Amino acid sequence: MNYLNMTKEQLQAHYDAVYAHFLSCKEQKLKLNMARGKPAASQLDLVNDILTCLVDPKECLVDGIDARNYGELAGLPAAREYWADVLGCRPEQTIVGGSSSLNLMYDLISRAYTHGLTHSERPWSKEDVVKFLCPSPGYDRHFKVTESFGAELITVPMTAEGPDMDVVEQYVKDPQVKGIWCVPKYSNPDGIIYSDKTIDRLANLKAAAPDFTIMWDNAYCVHEFCGEYVEFPDIISICKKAGNPDMVYEFASTSKITFPGAGISVVASSEANIAYMLDIMGVQIISYDKINQLRHVKYLKNKAHTLEIMKKHATVLGPKFQMVLDMLDKEIAPCGFGNWVAPKGGYFVSFNTMPGTAKRALALCKEAGVVMTGAGATFPYGKDPQDSNIRIAPSLPPVDELEKAMDVFCTCLKLAALEKLMETK
Amino acid sequence: MNYLNMTKEQLQAHYDAVYAHFLSCKEQKLKLNMARGKPAASQLDLVNDILTCLVDPKECLVDGIDARNYGELAGLPAAREYWADVLGCRPEQTIVGGSSSLNLMYDLISRAYTHGLTHSERPWSKEDVVKFLCPSPGYDRHFKVTESFGAELITVPMTAEGPDMDVVEQYVKDPQVKGIWCVPKYSNPDGIIYSDKTIDRLANLKAAAPDFTIMWDNAYCVHEFCGEYVEFPDIISICKKAGNPDMVYEFASTSKITFPGAGISVVASSEANIAYMLDIMGVQIISYDKINQLRHVKYLKNKAHTLEIMKKHATVLGPKFQMVLDMLDKEIAPCGFGNWVAPKGGYFVSFNTMPGTAKRALALCKEAGVVMTGAGATFPYGKDPQDSNIRIAPSLPPVDELEKAMDVFCTCLKLAALEKLMETK
Repeated sequence: MNYLNMTKEQLQAHYDAVYAHFLSCKEQKLKLNMARGKPAASQLDLVNDILTCLVDPKECLVDGIDARNYGELAGLPAAREYWADVLGCRPEQTIVGGSSSLNLMYDLISRAYTHGLTHSERPWSKEDVVKFLCPSPGYDRHFKVTESFGAELITVPMTAEGPDMDVVEQYVKDPQVKGIWCVPKYSNPDGIIYSDKTIDRLANLKAAAPDFTIMWDNAYCVHEFCGEYVEFPDIISICKKAGNPDMVYEFASTSKITFPGAGISVVASSEANIAYMLDIMGVQIISYDKINQLRHVKYLKNKAHTLEIMKKHATVLGPKFQMVLDMLDKEIAPCGFGNWVAPKGGYFVSFNTMPGTAKRALALCKEAGVVMTGAGATFPYGKDPQDSNIRIAPSLPPVDELEKAMDVFCTCLKLAALEKLMETK
Repeated sequence: MNYLNMTKEQLQAHYDAVYAHFLSCKEQKLKLNMARGKPAASQLDLVNDILTCLVDPKECLVDGIDARNYGELAGLPAAREYWADVLGCRPEQTIVGGSSSLNLMYDLISRAYTHGLTHSERPWSKEDVVKFLCPSPGYDRHFKVTESFGAELITVPMTAEGPDMDVVEQYVKDPQVKGIWCVPKYSNPDGIIYSDKTIDRLANLKAAAPDFTIMWDNAYCVHEFCGEYVEFPDIISICKKAGNPDMVYEFASTSKITFPGAGISVVASSEANIAYMLDIMGVQIISYDKINQLRHVKYLKNKAHTLEIMKKHATVLGPKFQMVLDMLDKEIAPCGFGNWVAPKGGYFVSFNTMPGTAKRALALCKEAGVVMTGAGATFPYGKDPQDSNIRIAPSLPPVDELEKAMDVFCTCLKLAALEKLMETK
């Protein structure tokens, strides 16, 4: 069954069988989506009570503040305390934003371009060239933010412990290299957790740019779907200890805890960075939605209670990831191509198929009614030099649909691999 | 009683009497605030039902969209329809944002600097000089946005019909002049409504800059506190008819309809501008808070129902403005200095005191425990060349406190004027 040992005739015979199955898939006229890390409706049902947890106007008065009126640019004190509890930092190191952490990240990069950051010699728009490190495979939306402002994206290989730090340490000697995108826990898409060693080397970077910035997107900080909660370190303290107190900005949101796009977000950093940010943010907005901040504090309470809610999400997500991994084990492993890691949290499975076949496989998927994240999306400029990495997002479809989608996906992976092998025989 | 006809001795005698009253005010150790257009707690109480209007998760499914999940970058269709109804434009011409229209305005200017607008030859950050027209007195936060990006702010005089269009028409011949800030209805702070003639001349501007932009902040579009609702024209259609379809961006929010800072906002413009904006915004955010959009649509329903809610706000705001105007009529009018216009909507009374005395008057107010918007704030760079304009924001304090605050304010205006007159005698 291992494709790599097959003769041309065996490949052709096997191809015919797999293609017949592909045609039968197509006949089902499926419309399935595994493209985005979108929670399923059944997950949203688990947290519907957030709609009813703040209905008494008397409860809008907290800490002497009327959450119904303007004010508190940095966020409701109770919401800052909530995030400090979750992230392990201090409330003064946080700004609680609106419904999107991506928006906070974009705004930080935008501010770097228009105004500069705390230690910038000038706004980045006045630099000849700005380069940004993109550990890949990574999150396409991160890469797009820096690409959108004209930064030159530099691919840094991912390892099982996080970004390849030998490579990162070399690149930051270049003063044009202004930052790096990181998803430290259950990285998007690999699902790995940065090792303590990697985190330590990141915090200790001796960057030539005085305003070198670690964009620390802790998107999946409490997002285990398998096994127990895994502690993570406070990156702000670690950077401070390393003598780089203002180098990191940490981001998180409740988008995959309560309702996606209708939650609250946070940026956490050193007090100096927070003060600098608030100064510029005060021109942009009077205050973020404190009613929704209060609603979330009342509903999520604290880190411990949030982890209980995440266990409920795990009951929905866990079986879906198991289904994906079982299908890959059963359908792909025996074929002798492809590799992947079984994650215990986050929203993705990162699958590396036979080099040169990812695009073709996903085109076939589309033909059969299954939409996946575009091939290459996990690399800068959407170009995977190996044409190999595919991000699987199993969260949205119900398990029965997911099974069908994975059947199509595995079939298309096989077809593309077989085509490639037959070409070269 | 007219100060201008008094002898030096009369001035001194009057000063002594007013100063004695000032001291008695100080003894009250007041802590009153007329600095910002903040609704009063009693106004917020009028709209508390918005907390309970969306509690059933089944109602989160609208137009085939689950408002609880990601998606719909331009906003929930029902929310776009709501704003189109209020503004008199079409839903396709709107993007419904988060809780702050200031944020949408800032982001538009920021985008102009980093990416350029629809007809920009280059991003504004690549221009040698960017100039922006600031009809004054105007809104300090508007001016600060463009100042923050390094634009050169140009003061344009306000008339009873809006910005002085003779001046505007001259300035826009300069290709470095990239835009103008406008508050067309109940302008901040003058409280005047732009005349049809002014609006027509604005729409027909022949600007040298291809990307000249009218920032049309329709902040008080339905905000009458006295008398009947006054219709306003759809600026987008008018600009289109004038052959300038992409010149205007209109902004509004529910911040003074429901809860300030916890409502929904909108930017409306031509379809071409909306498409261009969505393209860049798609990098910034996945979608704004659709749950809050839906909550607002359910609560506000449509323009007609919104106007009914505004009548309730008027019952709170009307008497406050009446108190301010009565006090000015009684205390200041007889003294022969100062002028003001009685507005019928908006959030401010614009008071022009004796030139050269505004700062001194407000310093005295502060000494007596009454905080006002800083003198000069209504002009670019916070500098009123006449040192005369003062913005009165009567909305926040209850009527009894407002009466005390106005007593202090009138007393301080008199003291500063008397000091000035005594100096020059």
